[in-house]
Amino acid sequence: MTFSELSPAVHEVPDLSDAALTQRLQHILDNKTKPVGALGQLEALALRIGSILGSEAPALAAPQMLVCAADHGLAARGVSAYPSDVTWQMVQNFLAGGAAVSVLARQHGLALTVADCGVRHEFAPQAGLVIRKIGPGTADASAGAAMTADQCTQAIANGRELVRALPGNALLLGEMGIGNTSTASMLLARLAGLALDACVGVGTGLDAAGLARKRTVLAGVLELHRGATSALDALAAFGGFEIATMVGAVLQAAQERRVIVVDGFITGAAVLVAHTLRPNVVQRCIASHESAEPGHALLLAHLGLRPLLRLDLRLGEGSGAALAWPLLESACRILREMASFEAAGVSRSDG
Amino acid sequence: MTFSELSPAVHEVPDLSDAALTQRLQHILDNKTKPVGALGQLEALALRIGSILGSEAPALAAPQMLVCAADHGLAARGVSAYPSDVTWQMVQNFLAGGAAVSVLARQHGLALTVADCGVRHEFAPQAGLVIRKIGPGTADASAGAAMTADQCTQAIANGRELVRALPGNALLLGEMGIGNTSTASMLLARLAGLALDACVGVGTGLDAAGLARKRTVLAGVLELHRGATSALDALAAFGGFEIATMVGAVLQAAQERRVIVVDGFITGAAVLVAHTLRPNVVQRCIASHESAEPGHALLLAHLGLRPLLRLDLRLGEGSGAALAWPLLESACRILREMASFEAAGVSRSDG
Repeated sequence: MTFSELSPAVHEVPDLSDAALTQRLQHILDNKTKPVGALGQLEALALRIGSILGSEAPALAAPQMLVCAADHGLAARGVSAYPSDVTWQMVQNFLAGGAAVSVLARQHGLALTVADCGVRHEFAPQAGLVIRKIGPGTADASAGAAMTADQCTQAIANGRELVRALPGNALLLGEMGIGNTSTASMLLARLAGLALDACVGVGTGLDAAGLARKRTVLAGVLELHRGATSALDALAAFGGFEIATMVGAVLQAAQERRVIVVDGFITGAAVLVAHTLRPNVVQRCIASHESAEPGHALLLAHLGLRPLLRLDLRLGEGSGAALAWPLLESACRILREMASFEAAGVSRSDG
Repeated sequence: MTFSELSPAVHEVPDLSDAALTQRLQHILDNKTKPVGALGQLEALALRIGSILGSEAPALAAPQMLVCAADHGLAARGVSAYPSDVTWQMVQNFLAGGAAVSVLARQHGLALTVADCGVRHEFAPQAGLVIRKIGPGTADASAGAAMTADQCTQAIANGRELVRALPGNALLLGEMGIGNTSTASMLLARLAGLALDACVGVGTGLDAAGLARKRTVLAGVLELHRGATSALDALAAFGGFEIATMVGAVLQAAQERRVIVVDGFITGAAVLVAHTLRPNVVQRCIASHESAEPGHALLLAHLGLRPLLRLDLRLGEGSGAALAWPLLESACRILREMASFEAAGVSRSDG
């Protein structure tokens, strides 16, 4: 399988490490009117955003919530508590404003774009929806590769193009696709070299029998595609179209030095694939939360990302990314707006 | 010691338990377009706010950030890394807009009121500052009671009156007072019956020698006031004026069924005192975060409160309460704005 679209020369993701900038940001934080380090993880967040945007006074502009949706052939094997029709029904719900991500994006002024990357449904044209459909859901990964190399390449290119067309310097990622915790679990097991059982959870809410069935099915799929060990081969083998599209979105956003806000387990799997291709992408990523899906903590640990929220969310859609968004804004405002000890005339520590 | 101002007949805090309302709220949440429970702790938060405000479609209105400041005589014993002058300097910084709580309150549209409950400084009148000064800092608790019963009663009454004068249905609490982690540690040890050492931390940033000194000093103060076992006796013995004022604020807000957003360890200690007097106050409380100060986790466990954020904050001022505020807004919007399965035409679980 060749993926010429991904040749390193075209899509380099440079190392962001800049010791001088990091030192200046740390100095600014340490001179704000608070004990050193007293804002905890918010200070690390400020440092990271400053590093990504290359600024000592970073400002987030025109944040974009991109929700990628697609169906999974594997869903026919009973790996989810919900029928595949829920994928398109929820896309309509996103666009109508009634889903969690719609509500939260509205609350925080996040522009919401929903991309049909391969939903098994023909949508009427409507505001907020972009059609980048690769096919009516992936093929059943238990019978063969979920997608062809060409489909995978095209989905990644679509993700790149989607981000290129969006304004702003911050990308929040969300997704919808019945069956896609299965895909994410297999990508995690394969690319992080973890035991499958540790990577599999109840998803939208399987019972014990359903979870056992899911584990059996996924073990079979992993075995069928035991040769798919590279990031792109694994992505093509397991799917899905929305994950491949997000891989392209992450690579593009990383190259443009946008702040990438990762939602939960499935968007995390897309970052994992992108990271395996271009390790430096994680320098641009903020993990919004750690979900209740057990594989997510393993995935974040593998990527070296520390989540902002731990609220036992397990919804996807970008809901966790949206919930964490105000913390990113706060981190920037701390850098830009807080007074220094000198400016405020506040005494320093006796120590 | 008598505290007639606190007689039960005058200041009852009724039990909010309402099984019918809880059931209706749970039903509404379970019918929103998401797997049951998929928004995790945000759903529990929605349920709590709905219960406090007595509404299936709660709306937070005119949120008030009340920051109570005072000095502590005990600070002269070297229990803090910062000099007492930082209390008044930070009050000026709050009012000038340069402190963390100023920045975060501005971000989230929280009206900020700073109350001088007993700062060792004479402030010029200025917008946003209310003077409810009991004295120029408490007396040194290592030499006698930090305050008299009359001072304690007056501070609690001040807190009640401050809240009565504020609009809205949500109160966020913050504080400033060099030395007040010491006071909070002693209140926690005494009222929750915990070993002192587990309740003491580095506060604003003591080194190892400073922490050892703080422990020794506080052990002596606890021993001196070993007879101060009731909530009010302990409060008078250990201080401080800002904590006593917040006790009144919590009691008043609870009686008015306001949502009370608790910041960190010191505001938590005020809730602990109020809870010991009137256990039902915690039904109205939201723990915004769990701080890096080790006693805070113990305090929250004692109150049965689960924190929303864990960001290793240790600043106080109300900064954690402000950071968590958007999550409260989100919880209300989930209840009010998310579509039900029926309304959105989304299929339910197969399970």
